[in-house]
Amino acid sequence: MPPRKRQRYIIGVDLGGTNIVAGAMPEDGSREIAMRSEPTHAQQGADAVVDRIARMIDTVIAETIAETNAKREDFAGVGIGSPGPLDRERGIVIVTPNLGWRNFPLRDEVVKRVGLPASLDNDANCATLGEWWCGAAKGARHVIGITIGTGIGGGLILDGRLFHGASDVAGEIGHTTIDSTGRRCNCGNYGCLEAYASGPAIAERAREALAGGEPSILLKMVGDDLGKITAQLVYDAAKKDDDVARQVVRETANFLGAGVANLLNIFNPDVVVIAGGVTQAGAPLFEPLRAEVRRRAFRPAVEACKILPGTLRGSAGVVGAVATFKQQVLDGM
Amino acid sequence: MPPRKRQRYIIGVDLGGTNIVAGAMPEDGSREIAMRSEPTHAQQGADAVVDRIARMIDTVIAETIAETNAKREDFAGVGIGSPGPLDRERGIVIVTPNLGWRNFPLRDEVVKRVGLPASLDNDANCATLGEWWCGAAKGARHVIGITIGTGIGGGLILDGRLFHGASDVAGEIGHTTIDSTGRRCNCGNYGCLEAYASGPAIAERAREALAGGEPSILLKMVGDDLGKITAQLVYDAAKKDDDVARQVVRETANFLGAGVANLLNIFNPDVVVIAGGVTQAGAPLFEPLRAEVRRRAFRPAVEACKILPGTLRGSAGVVGAVATFKQQVLDGM
Repeated sequence: MPPRKRQRYIIGVDLGGTNIVAGAMPEDGSREIAMRSEPTHAQQGADAVVDRIARMIDTVIAETIAETNAKREDFAGVGIGSPGPLDRERGIVIVTPNLGWRNFPLRDEVVKRVGLPASLDNDANCATLGEWWCGAAKGARHVIGITIGTGIGGGLILDGRLFHGASDVAGEIGHTTIDSTGRRCNCGNYGCLEAYASGPAIAERAREALAGGEPSILLKMVGDDLGKITAQLVYDAAKKDDDVARQVVRETANFLGAGVANLLNIFNPDVVVIAGGVTQAGAPLFEPLRAEVRRRAFRPAVEACKILPGTLRGSAGVVGAVATFKQQVLDGM
Repeated sequence: MPPRKRQRYIIGVDLGGTNIVAGAMPEDGSREIAMRSEPTHAQQGADAVVDRIARMIDTVIAETIAETNAKREDFAGVGIGSPGPLDRERGIVIVTPNLGWRNFPLRDEVVKRVGLPASLDNDANCATLGEWWCGAAKGARHVIGITIGTGIGGGLILDGRLFHGASDVAGEIGHTTIDSTGRRCNCGNYGCLEAYASGPAIAERAREALAGGEPSILLKMVGDDLGKITAQLVYDAAKKDDDVARQVVRETANFLGAGVANLLNIFNPDVVVIAGGVTQAGAPLFEPLRAEVRRRAFRPAVEACKILPGTLRGSAGVVGAVATFKQQVLDGM
């Protein structure tokens, strides 16, 4: 019998505008180790952020060694997920409004500090690959991931591999038009899905609904300060059967349904996994969303596809960053 | 020096509701041979249609042998393009309203009659693969094809291969919503691209524009019979600087632009090739279409992508059917 190959470990880093999340996983994806989160403090500048990432990686390595039988040489490398757009091949963040970076060589700066190989991919791609590797879409062949938070991101897994397109922009599902003459989006386009169904867009639509003067417990929840309304509060109010909030959630489901139906007719995926804060809305969102997709998309596409909430929650980005390193650097998975 | 391998020949069949087009090509795609078109006469029933296809194939083989140094045993097989939806693996046409077929085993009926292996794929997939193999999108890595005629079909080529999705429905670009509360589409959905930019939709929008009473040479062209307006006549009138027709073409460009921008943000393709009758509208359509895509899509996606009219015209379906047989049966291309 050949000697059993030692398990290798991969570190994942999920860089966000607010927090950095990091952790390690064995390359078989069987568990999450030493997960931690720290504030990004983007205003301190790129060098300070990379220093913080490097320190977190050191801590993750030390803790993983303490918790497992891993040795320092068992760490294969670091997968990094970052807001984009990116130049994946060169490991460069082209521009991120949230971090204030332009053409920053994030991957090589991390490599320089930690002395391990690293890969860089888009955060929404990582979250999608994470759900495919260890979460709701585990092992499915064709998967579309949609992450809904401040913005709406997306990732495409075709034949079990992330699809990046001609210049690493593929998957910008939030910026597909569902109403060509509709709401102006931050990206400059009109009627993008993100302009209707992102967290801030949901809050904005709730404020508009309340401006009509209808009674709602939302007003009490924010002490009549409409500026304090968030998507989360809208979900909470909807769960308490508040009519205005329920209507906003139902409309959110319809907008998302139009966007998801488009994806079904274009891609015919096996799974659409929806992750991010919006999943906390639960069945009141997902049931009308599935119904709207059934109304709009081709039946063979509807029948082939499950529409599921993500299951990895806060760790999807890290798990996915680990998976991108594994897929792009280590092997073909 | 090893003996030079003999060139093999593949027959392509493009089955449409109105016409059947057939021809042959050497497997290197270097030329089209013995191209011919016959009326489908769908009302005579499926058996009569398959008999006609088989006779056309026999003629194509005989003529190819006469024109080249091919022998009967040099014919590798038949690629068939058909309206869908299809079960590609089993070679079955699931349903085609134009032909009135349901669960018809088209591939095996052809095999039975001609004694050659055959493959079956969607007509829009074939047209896209044809443009990729020998036409406007030759050799590009990621290609989206859009065929505009009575309906709007589409095909996706990712990493040089047709992408079929989980159940062979992928590429239904005509049935993506660009206005979620917009025009009712034949598919039952609202605001589909097809409901705005197919041939009949273009004619319908021209009729609506004329109902306003504006002067237009279109009226003279149809002897005041609005029922006779076609997309082709609208293009012709636009080329003669007719204001109504030009406005309809410009709006068509805007609708298509919204749909194509969605595809750029989702897929980030190298080429979008647009084929079918609409390409006859030429620059008055393509220029505002490109401008609208630039306005709507992400810059790195716009910069990576050429938007081109198809160049194969009537033979794209046959060339593509040959290419699908080559790709799916003969080799990996």
